[in-house]
Formats: sequence, C-alpha cells, structure tokens
Amino acid sequence: MAGPSHHAPPASDPLDRSRFPLDEWRLVEKRFDLEDAGVTESLFSVGNGYLGLRGNLSESRDAHFDGTFVNGFHETWPILHAEEAYGFARIGQTIVNAPDPKVIRLYVDDEPLQLSVADLLEYERALDFRTGVLSRELLWRTPGGKEAKIRATRMVPLAQRHLALMTFEVTMLDQRASLVLSSQILNRQDVPGFAASSVTPGSTNDPRQAEGFDRRVLMPQLASADGETGRIALGYQCADSGMTLGVVADHELDTAAPYSMRVHAEDDSAKVMFRVAAEPGVTVRLTKLVSVHTAASVPARELIDRCERTLDRTHEQGVQHQLDEQREWLADFWSRCDVEIPGQPALQQAVRWNLFSLAQASARAETQGIPAKGVTGTGYGGHYFWDTEIYVMPFLTYTMPYAARNALRFRYTLLDSARSRARELAQKGALFPWRTINGHEASAYYAAGTAQYHIDADIAYALSQYVGATGDTDFLRREAIDIFVETARLWADLGFWRDETRRTFHIHGVTGPDEYTTVVNDNLYTNVLARFNLRRAAHAVWELQKADPAGYDELVRRTGLREEEPSEWADCAKGMLIPFDEYLGIHPQDAHFLEREMWDLERTPLEKRPLLLHYHPLVIYRFQVLKQADVVLALFLLGEEFTPEQKRADFEYYDPITTGDSTLSAVMQSIIAAEVGYHELALRYFNSAVYVDLADRHNNTADGVHVASTGGVWSALVGGFGGFRDLGVAKGADQWCVDPRLPEGWEALVYRVTLHGTRVRVTVRQDELELFAEEGTGPVRLNVRGHAVHVTQGAPVVVPLDGQGPRIPGEPPNPAGVLRADGTVISAIVPSGHDPVHDPTPQS
Amino acid sequence: MAGPSHHAPPASDPLDRSRFPLDEWRLVEKRFDLEDAGVTESLFSVGNGYLGLRGNLSESRDAHFDGTFVNGFHETWPILHAEEAYGFARIGQTIVNAPDPKVIRLYVDDEPLQLSVADLLEYERALDFRTGVLSRELLWRTPGGKEAKIRATRMVPLAQRHLALMTFEVTMLDQRASLVLSSQILNRQDVPGFAASSVTPGSTNDPRQAEGFDRRVLMPQLASADGETGRIALGYQCADSGMTLGVVADHELDTAAPYSMRVHAEDDSAKVMFRVAAEPGVTVRLTKLVSVHTAASVPARELIDRCERTLDRTHEQGVQHQLDEQREWLADFWSRCDVEIPGQPALQQAVRWNLFSLAQASARAETQGIPAKGVTGTGYGGHYFWDTEIYVMPFLTYTMPYAARNALRFRYTLLDSARSRARELAQKGALFPWRTINGHEASAYYAAGTAQYHIDADIAYALSQYVGATGDTDFLRREAIDIFVETARLWADLGFWRDETRRTFHIHGVTGPDEYTTVVNDNLYTNVLARFNLRRAAHAVWELQKADPAGYDELVRRTGLREEEPSEWADCAKGMLIPFDEYLGIHPQDAHFLEREMWDLERTPLEKRPLLLHYHPLVIYRFQVLKQADVVLALFLLGEEFTPEQKRADFEYYDPITTGDSTLSAVMQSIIAAEVGYHELALRYFNSAVYVDLADRHNNTADGVHVASTGGVWSALVGGFGGFRDLGVAKGADQWCVDPRLPEGWEALVYRVTLHGTRVRVTVRQDELELFAEEGTGPVRLNVRGHAVHVTQGAPVVVPLDGQGPRIPGEPPNPAGVLRADGTVISAIVPSGHDPVHDPTPQS
Repeated sequence: MAGPSHHAPPASDPLDRSRFPLDEWRLVEKRFDLEDAGVTESLFSVGNGYLGLRGNLSESRDAHFDGTFVNGFHETWPILHAEEAYGFARIGQTIVNAPDPKVIRLYVDDEPLQLSVADLLEYERALDFRTGVLSRELLWRTPGGKEAKIRATRMVPLAQRHLALMTFEVTMLDQRASLVLSSQILNRQDVPGFAASSVTPGSTNDPRQAEGFDRRVLMPQLASADGETGRIALGYQCADSGMTLGVVADHELDTAAPYSMRVHAEDDSAKVMFRVAAEPGVTVRLTKLVSVHTAASVPARELIDRCERTLDRTHEQGVQHQLDEQREWLADFWSRCDVEIPGQPALQQAVRWNLFSLAQASARAETQGIPAKGVTGTGYGGHYFWDTEIYVMPFLTYTMPYAARNALRFRYTLLDSARSRARELAQKGALFPWRTINGHEASAYYAAGTAQYHIDADIAYALSQYVGATGDTDFLRREAIDIFVETARLWADLGFWRDETRRTFHIHGVTGPDEYTTVVNDNLYTNVLARFNLRRAAHAVWELQKADPAGYDELVRRTGLREEEPSEWADCAKGMLIPFDEYLGIHPQDAHFLEREMWDLERTPLEKRPLLLHYHPLVIYRFQVLKQADVVLALFLLGEEFTPEQKRADFEYYDPITTGDSTLSAVMQSIIAAEVGYHELALRYFNSAVYVDLADRHNNTADGVHVASTGGVWSALVGGFGGFRDLGVAKGADQWCVDPRLPEGWEALVYRVTLHGTRVRVTVRQDELELFAEEGTGPVRLNVRGHAVHVTQGAPVVVPLDGQGPRIPGEPPNPAGVLRADGTVISAIVPSGHDPVHDPTPQS
Repeated sequence: MAGPSHHAPPASDPLDRSRFPLDEWRLVEKRFDLEDAGVTESLFSVGNGYLGLRGNLSESRDAHFDGTFVNGFHETWPILHAEEAYGFARIGQTIVNAPDPKVIRLYVDDEPLQLSVADLLEYERALDFRTGVLSRELLWRTPGGKEAKIRATRMVPLAQRHLALMTFEVTMLDQRASLVLSSQILNRQDVPGFAASSVTPGSTNDPRQAEGFDRRVLMPQLASADGETGRIALGYQCADSGMTLGVVADHELDTAAPYSMRVHAEDDSAKVMFRVAAEPGVTVRLTKLVSVHTAASVPARELIDRCERTLDRTHEQGVQHQLDEQREWLADFWSRCDVEIPGQPALQQAVRWNLFSLAQASARAETQGIPAKGVTGTGYGGHYFWDTEIYVMPFLTYTMPYAARNALRFRYTLLDSARSRARELAQKGALFPWRTINGHEASAYYAAGTAQYHIDADIAYALSQYVGATGDTDFLRREAIDIFVETARLWADLGFWRDETRRTFHIHGVTGPDEYTTVVNDNLYTNVLARFNLRRAAHAVWELQKADPAGYDELVRRTGLREEEPSEWADCAKGMLIPFDEYLGIHPQDAHFLEREMWDLERTPLEKRPLLLHYHPLVIYRFQVLKQADVVLALFLLGEEFTPEQKRADFEYYDPITTGDSTLSAVMQSIIAAEVGYHELALRYFNSAVYVDLADRHNNTADGVHVASTGGVWSALVGGFGGFRDLGVAKGADQWCVDPRLPEGWEALVYRVTLHGTRVRVTVRQDELELFAEEGTGPVRLNVRGHAVHVTQGAPVVVPLDGQGPRIPGEPPNPAGVLRADGTVISAIVPSGHDPVHDPTPQS
C-alpha cells in the first residue's frame, strides 16, 4: 500500500515557474489565466485587515468574484432552522460585498480592454511584499492594431485604515488614439447576476462557503458626483443589521494630452469618465484615491464626511507620502517578522507571501476580529473563529504585540454577549460564540459549532501567551482577567464530578477541534485546555489578590467573584479526566474514540475527499477518522504536559487517520512530526501548508486566503523547525525554550521573536544555534535543550547543537492491524453503499 | 420529596362533568368555550383516515384553526438547512390545509350566528361513537329577540372514502324571520391571516408544530357553481408537489317555506346562498353532500368528475343509506375492537373515544400511512413516523387485520425510496425515512430523525406480528419478505465487528426511541430490535427456500439475495452486543448512558417542562434523563428476551428519570409497571395516557389528536392490564399468552383479539379469566400463565386466576443515590444558569 502520502504531498515546488517566476520578495504572474482567476484574485488581494480589495482586474471583466470587503461590515438575517430547537443560534451574519471602488475601465478607440480576449504582447502582475503595491504592466495590441502600454497599481495602506490608492497609466506607443478611462464605484452586492447576490441561502451544500441574499442588502442613502473635482461618493445602510458605509473616490488625471471629464451618480454606481485625445509617447496617468468608512449606525452622510476628510488629508500629504509610509511600515514589519530560509528561494517566496498575508489580515483589524479569510473573500461568511487565537495570535504575540492586544481586546468586548450565551446554554460564566461577527453565536450547526466549547480555553490560552510574551500585566489585571474568571466558571459548571467523592472531573457532550467526530465525552483537547484554563484563572486571581488588593476588589465588583471560586477551579483542574489508553500508550481523542470503527483512508478514492462533501455526518462520525489534528494540537499547545513517548505514540496513531481535510491540520502535524522525529514527513506537511493557497491545495482559495494556515505556517517555522516554545503559558510565567528541528538539506533557518520588548533573532544551523538581540536590551533568558542562555544587547550567543532531535525513518504505519488490550486486532473499512440514486421527484 | 408523580398524575377523572357529562358511547359538550376551541376542534373531529374535518363550527367563526385534511395531500418545498451537509434531507413535505367544505353560515334577519357572542338558551355538541355522527343542537335567542332552534350534523363515512355529509336545520320557534344559509367551500390555505398561511418556516421553535408557507400553495384550476342544481366545485394543484385536488358539494333545501337560491364561484371560494322566509314552527333543512378526490397529478378537472360520480351515486342510494352504513360499520368495529371496563363509566367513555379516534385515523388510510395526528391537525406536518408500526399496528393487527395489511403495503411501496436513501447514507439494504409523506426522508434534524435507524426494525416487527396474528404468509412470501431482506442487510452493514475475531457486533451512531439522548453507540432498543430483525429475516428466507423454491427464486431475482446472506445475518444477530450492567443489574440505554450526569427531575420546575422547549439539545443530551420509554419499550416488544428480574430492575431505574415529555411514553410505562408489579403506578400512567387529548395533558391537542397514544391506550389495556402478548413475533410463529394484571378496584376488563380469523373475547376478572370465540371456529391455542388453553366455538373457557401478578408497594425511588460498581454514588442536579438574557441587537 502506498502509505498516507495522499494527505502529505511530496515536498517539491508545486508552482509553474514559467508562469510564476521565482522572486523571494514578490509574487509575480507572467500569464493571465481565466481558468483560475478566482485563485489569483485571492492571491493578489491587497488589504490592511480593515479594507480588502480582491485582485480583480481593474477593467472589471473576467472576474471570478469581484470582491471588496470591510472587516465587520455585515448584514444580519434570521437563521431559519429547518427544524427548530431551544437555544439554536438565531442571528445569521454575513460579510457584505462592499461597493467596489476598484473599477477603472479603459477603452481605446471605443474598444474595451478585456484580458481574456486581448492580444497581449506583454503581461505581468506582481504583488511586492516590500512596497505593498500590486502592479500590472501590459502591452496591448488593440483590435485596431495600435500598441498601448498600460501600467496600473493598487495599494491599501497598512498604516492608513480607511484608504486605498490606485493608478492607471496608458501610453500609446505608435499611434494616436481616443482613450476613455471610466473610473467607478459600483455596488455589486445588490445587482442580480453578480456572484454574492446570486447565491441564495441553502443553495450550496459546502458549509465552508458563504450564503448570499435573495433580497436587497445595501439600501442607498446617498449618491453624488462632482463634475468640477471628479469626486464621487456613495452611501449605504444594510437593510437588516443597520450598519452604514460611506465610500468616496477622488480622481486626478495627469497628461499633456487634451481631455474632457464627465461624471454620473445613481443608486448603485458613481463614475467619472475621462476622454483623452492621446498622442504617441505621451503618458496618460489617472490617480484614484478611495476612502471607506463604516459604522454600526452613524448616518451614511457623516461617514461620507469622514471619507472626505481622509482624502483631503491624503491630498495634503501627497501620494508619494503614502507610498513611502507603506514601504517604511513593511520594512518595520519584515524586521520584526521575517523568517529566512537561506538557499531555499521557492520556499522563501512562499513563506513571505504567507507572512505578508498575515499582515494584510491583521494590521488594522483593531476593534474587530480576524476573519477566517481576512478581507480577501466571502468564505465562512466573514466570521471570526478560534483561528485567531490558536493560529494567528502566536505570530502576532511574538512579532506584533500591539496587534495581538487589539485582538484580545476585541474578545473582551464580546464578554457580555458570551455571558448571555452561557445562560442560554444553561451554564454559568461565559461561552464565546464559535463563529460570529457581532458577538452573537452564528453557528447554525451546533454539533460542529456551539458544541466546540474549547473556544473559551483557546481564548484564555492566547491571553496567557500574550501576557507571558509581553509582560503586559496591566491589561491582564484591569480588564482581561475577567475572561479568565468567566471561562473558568464555564468549565467548572459544564463539567461534573462523576460521583460525590469527587475523584474525576468529566466534561461531556462537547466537540473538539476535529469536526469528524462531534458531541463526545471527555475530548482530550478540550479537557487538557480546560484544565489549563481553570488553573490559569485561579493563578491569575490569587496573584492579583496578592499583588493588587484594590484591583482584586475591582475584579470582585465586576464579576461577583466569590473568594472560594479559585480553589474550586483548582479542584476541577486537579480532578480533570485526561483519557489515556494504557495498553496502546496513547491518548484517545475522547473517552470512547477507540471503540469506533476504523476508516480506511488508504483505500478511500481521492474523489471522495474531503469526506465532508461526500458522506453524511452520521457516517463520518461513526469512524476513527480525523478532519484535523486534535490530540496532536494539544501536544503542541501544552507540550510540557505530555512525555516524549506519549507524543510519539499519539502522533503515530493519529497521523495516518488524519485526512487533513481542514487547512488547520497540516501545520500542526508538521510541528509534532518534527518534534517526535518524523523529519521528512514534517517537511512534507509544511510544504503542503505553505502552498495551501499558492497551489490551491484545497480547491477553495477562490473563496479567500486561508489566514489560519498562514499563521500556522509561521508557527510551523518558529515552533516546529525552529523549536521555539513557551512552557510557561500554563503557569502564567515566561519559560521560553528552543529545541530546533532544522530539516535535512536546509542550511539555516532565521526567525525573530519579541520577548518582553526585546527582539531576539534566532538562527538555527545544522550544528549550532545563534541568538542575537536585534532590538531592545534584554536580558532575555531562553532555555536551549536544557541549558539556560541569556541574550543581551551586543554580540550574538552561539550554542553548539548535537543534531536536530530524534530521527525516525519512514512514516507511521496505519493503525489498522494494531493489537488491542483484549488481544483482538483493529480492522479498517471504507463505508459501503455509496453512489446515491437521488430522485427528488415526489412519489405519492 | 414528592416522588415522580408530576409525570404520572393521580388516577382521577380530569374532565369537568358539568361541561362534559358522562356518556359511555358519546363525547358530549354542554358549554362552548372559545378558550379551548383548539382542543375541542381536535376532540370533535370526524374523519375516516382519508378525509378529516376538524370540529370547527359550521358557521366558521370562533375557530382556533379551521382544518380540513386529506391524508397524503401535501406540498413540498426545498429544506433549507441553516448549515448544509452531504445527505441532509432535501425535500420538505407538509400536509396542506385542504379547501374547507364545512362552512354553512346562518343569518337570521341579517344577524350572523356566532357562538362566542350568541345568547344561547341551549347548547350541546356530541360525537356519537356508534352512529359516527357529530351533532350540535342550539337554542338561540337572536339579537332581535327571536328564538331559533338549530340542529346540525356532520359525518365522514367510514365506508365511503371520498364523502362527507352535513345537515343544518333551523326552526324559528316563535316568530317569522328572514333566514340566510350560506354554504361554502373555502380555500383557507392561501388566504393571508388564516392560521396555516400565517405560520412561516422558522417562526416556531416547537419542533412538534408544522411550519406553514409564505407563498401560495394551492393553484386554482377550476371554480364553478351551478345556479340550477346548487352544485359547487373547486379544483387545485399544489404549486410545488404538483398534487391535485377536486372538491364538489351538492345542496338540497327541504322546507315548506318559500326560498330563493343564488350561487357564486371564484378562485378561492364557491358558495350557495339560500334566502328563506321562515315561518314559526316550519323547519328549514339543508343537506350538503361533499366529495373530495386527490391524486399525485391527475388533472383537477378529472378529479371533479370523480367527485360528481361519487355524489351522483350517493344521491341514488340516499342519505339514509349512508347513515345506516355508518352505523353498521361501527357496529362491526365495536364488535371487533371494543374494550369494556364494567363499572368505570368515565374511563369507559375515554377508552371508547380513543378507540373511535383510531378508527377515524386508519379506516380508509389505504395507500397512505397513518399520520401522527391522523387527519385531525397539522401537527408534525402530517408526517408518518414509526408511530404506525409500534403504536397503531398492534391494534389494527389484532382487530382490523385488513387495515394492518394496508399499512404494511404502504411501507412496501416505499421500499425503493428506502433503498436509495440507504445509498445516500453509505449503507446497503434499505433505510426507511424517519418522517415522510411521499417516501423521501423529511427529517431536517438528523440527530432525532435520520439517526433513528430503528424504524427499519420497527417495520419488520409490525410485519412479523401481522403475519403471526393473521397467518397471511402469502403476503409475506410474495412481497413483504423484501422488507425483511433489505432491513436485515441494512443492519448487517451498519453494525460492525469490533475485531477480526468476530466476537461482538456493535451498532454505533444511532438514536433510539428516546430523543433526549441522540447519536449513541449500542442503543439497547436498537440492538435488541435489530437482532430480532436479522434473525427474523434469516428465518423467513430459509422458510421460503424450503417451502416454496419458486418463491425463493423470485425473491433472489427481486433482491439479488446471495445464498450466504441469511447465515451472515444470523451471525450478526448472535454477536449483537446487548449492553448490560452487571453491578446494577440493568440494561444501560446505550453503551455509555450510565456515564452521564443525572438530571434531577424532582427539582425541575414544571414550567421548564417539556425540557425540549426550555433547554438546548446539547444540555439535555448530557444527562441521564428520558423523553420517553426506550429500554422499557424493548421490554414490552420483545419481553421474552429479558428475565422478570431484569424487567423490574430496568423499570425501576428508568421510570423516575423518564419525563414522559412524549405522549408515546406513558402507555409503555403503564404496561411494564403493570407487568413488574407497580399496579397503582400502571393505572396512573394509563390514566395519563387515556386523557392525553381529552384533558389536553400535553398542551398541544389543538394541533391534532395524538394517534399513537390512542393506539398505545389499546396496547396498555390489552397488553398491559389484559396481559396479552405474542411471544412468537421474534420467531415467526404464533405463541399467544395471557398473563393479566387487572387493576385493583376494577371488576373486570373485556377485550377482543382476532387470531388467525377467530375473534377471541377475553374477560379478565380478579379471580378468573374467561376466553370465548365470538366469531370464527378456532381452535386458537393460548398460553395462560404457563397453561395451554384451546379456544373453540361454543362455550367459554374459564381459567381460575391466582391474583394479578406480583405487587410491589409504592414507586421506584430516584436512582440518584444509587451505588456504582466502583463504590461511588450517583448524584443528580438541575442544569444551572437558566433564564437567558437574549439581546438580538447586533453589537458591532
């Protein structure tokens, strides 16, 4: 049999380099392909975590999905459950496809530029990770036989939340021509036939896609166009959520050629049209500045005013200032965040695209969460999940701590909603929504949604990690400790002592990270994280009580904390059942996981993957088969609570039955594979993850960038190959360790982590580790394979390495065939009877 | 503490006898009350299993819900799941509120009769169980001070499928007056403001209610009114399902007074108006004959023709013929089915109302299933569930075997759909829909729907019981055996051997009858019934192979049966895991049921009941708490597979944690309570069940009669107190036993069962049992407490009884406090944190 390699592809470069030439600092495309336009639109998106523009062609044709997103700008709708029950989520939330300001159409002698049919003599599209600018260069032979040189750029400033800049240059090379440039803002949301509005609820059976609306969403509030200045504006309010949006665009045409301007505005569009009598060799350059503001309910008129002030200020500073500032922002970003893999240019490029995507998803997400797709697509409806805390927060915490703090503050603002939700679920404390935009639970399928109570512990984990890395105890003590208190209360109330002698504490009826089993008892991940959560909360309260009695009194006032609660939490943590199978030496994913039938992934044809699109949940749930790492994720997050033998045994058991049908999986599999010694497999999983979007590995990059995976790529580099961990997260203390696993064939790996304000550059080589304080004075104490190392300003510290940890040849075998304690052997099957004959015709 | 008596009310007469005077053969109402109009509409429904007319007032005012139902006449709609997944049910099906032919409005001097405001000097409404006629008698003092005597009747013939008869008589007692009688057929389905159309999907969070439509359902095809004859007709087609309906009404006015007639027809109504110059003492009598025909797609025009032919024939025979035929039909019915409780007139009346409701739900249901509400309401959308097989079929099988055969034939017609559905669920064999009208799974909540795989075994059980009782092996061998084969295949494929040594066969991921835990492993009920199903199928195939080789070859041709399959089924049955807890001596409801936390029902306030309307499913599923009998139901259906000690222990464990939130529960609890010796409790549960609708015990009788409960009442009388069982169901042989449990204080219990064509009357008295062949020659062999008794034509056989089985004082204690094998003690709680603060306002 072929082994499980079908879910960990070989570690070769999957990109067609004739189309996407290698460049360590840019993603470059040399040939446009309508076939995968949806993918490249996502890959060439520009955004700043607030405003996002998909990489659509500015001439606004040949699009898979014309997308413009503002983080948190959403419409609501009543969730209609096909069969209702008490406490089901009620308020659906869907990110709105905001009015599209990207449109600049070009006509030469009335012939429109349209890439898919144009006779292109030259083509390049490039996203530059250092300038933050998306650019296109075309040489077009028009249907009239004239040659036009076109250069267009698009940028969303990472330092300016509400701004976007575009330029569009045309130079007729050989002949004069009549040019028309039509620049527009277009409300596509409500125009029938456009993608977002053509999707009606229930029309897709892929739960990962957003559902659209079959009614008007954006109610026009204002449309204007100024024929003097070329300023156009549109204002809207969402019909149900009441959220408002204003968008304004300014235009400046630079050319020596004579031209005229006309403007027009109506409900769903505003436009400025320039007609230019172009001479050969004379460049026509249009600069378009766009500002977008949104609010919960501020009148659109006022938002338009805000846009105009943003634009006025931008004019004063000049466009070049924005370009310079963007370059500076990114220089700072890369100095904090860059991960270098010398001698691996293809991987280097892919890694930088992932990190750049993280910047674009999180830079200005303040007051909002970080959606699963950032601001690049409608996938998952623009919702925030645990992705932020477990996949993105480590990156932010160790490289951009201010952004990490923003993300935590956002969760803090949801605490009241989470308290109400806990009441609805008959629990004390707070239960954060599994998926949401506005703080209300929006998960319409509780088994793989609300039942994922672990979100509470995930948030507590990210909070503890942030406090440990930054030393920001002020934030903890004044505000964020409430999260510890309310989540600990939830766990203490949700779990139960199976008996009155209080020996073991159980948590029943929850779903862990792996969504291929749901509503189980004593899910290992949940219990381990809940135990951490309970202990960490108790510790934080006791520490506050000791260090800041007035702060403690405030906490009591805010939360009604009873003196004895922390001890109760510590008791629950102590009694927490951690499932372990003595005979196999592994942690069952839940109390009864090992009793399930074993799914034979090796014999499951690829066309039946991902399983969730080809099997009823009841079928999948009946088997030992994983969508994504579950136990293995716990091994990473709280590794110090497991022995090396357990980690290896757990990894070996679960890896062959993990489909990786979720992009959240490969990164974690890579990290633990590296740790326990499966180096080649670790690299394969990493390779799979780093190209999730670049190679469209899950066939849905068109719906947007997999932001959690990009964060996981950082974790796999830094925490996996780089071996960096904080063993103090559980204890509320910093206890940073480095135990690297540099892949064979890699010359070095260089990464940075900022610890209590000091940025430490870590260089892993095959035989040594170098630590250097790039910024800040330290001292920072790190533990390198059991030896304490102090990093201070000045010369690097070099620690010799005796290899890269254990090495196990080959891959873990399929656990089918494994002996059970009772002497019987596990067999594995593929569910039968497939190929439905589905006849929707009523028969009566 | 009060004990669990809150779910088994005291056995006293719950009816207000000043309003509902005692009458053993009629349900009589002496005072109209608008407050509970919904309940009385259901109680006074008339129907024949095909056509059902709710007990609405003919003047068509003061209604809770004006309902007219035709079994199987339904609309379809795409089920929109809030979050989609592969294999979820796609085709929603909802019974249509058919055009209402009940309307006969009366105006006296232009003043309308409206009960809620009328000055009524006399009032009586009565449903007669022997004539099958609903009648009303009113003495009305009109606003003008005149006295009008009104007598109205309504009947749906049990022998004529497509007919309804109504009369309306008015006699002015003291003064002349101008009368108007306006007789109508009204399409209420599509008129805004009427109940069915005002309910939109998702607007109720009570999953037991039907959801309505926010669009037009019945598309008008034809509307006519004949001014000569007073014949009016309407024809419709359902917009989505395409089903068609025709309804025609004829009118005849009998009076010595002068009158005129006008007619009118339009899309949603057709009417005939009589204006009569009424003289004192001269009766005005309107007779209205209605015929309804429906079809899958026959043009409405042709259905109208069919209606006209039905009416023409009825005219020829005369109305009196219908009345006589109805009386004869019911005389036969009561001779076959009546259960007598001498000396208990209140219970006698209630029992007869339940049995009469069974007749009305099943008499002419042929080619359709028996909906959960019969043809009395929209509850559960008019769907067919396992209710038919487990709750109604025993009654039909032992008293109206032809109707039982019809119900089984209906399931047989669904076999192809069930085969397709099994494929969708990745299984071999056939999987019958948990709820359906047209054969397609319509359960939008799989956890308490599709996951109830036990429906397959329930159908097999009813089939086996029917064949055993009737000896109808022809039907079995030629057709119904296919059901055995395909259901056995499903079980063999669904379950699995936990190991290659094939020691124990497990069935995972299913839901048993109790819906307060879902998607569990090795549900006892399911495994016991599946074991029966596997064995019974193997036995049936082997028997056929031996007795009828040609029939066997036909079976092979129809089903592709492999020679070795029956042996495989027998192996699976042999290895079937039947969960049993040695320490407690009970059968856990599922493999891990005893690990759940214990819900403290005694401390759960009544306003939190039923739990399903006050707690999220995730909360309920986490606890040991039952909606309805599960293990206890298995103890009844396959009692011979359990020891008396096990039955008692099981009953004692489960009874205190069974909420009885389902009306399917009390009857089964009554049967097993009686068997194991809790006589008083058995009577309390019986009392609860027999008044489920009459006393509106579940607060939803307004949605329709609980037909399964009415069937269960028969089972509780015959199988519980009467002690009748067939121990041969599992073996495919008849092995009838009687081991009675006559309640203390009952003088006697008389019931009838028809066995192989011989109707045996069983009279249970405190000290003896009398068996008598009322019809047929026998001999019938029955086992009375271990002694074989042969019943033949002629004199009754009398068997002395030594008491009524074991007697245990008091009630089973709450299992909280029970010792576990590990020496720990079970405690019980009520889930905390209730009272949600639900703020639907978006917060972003």
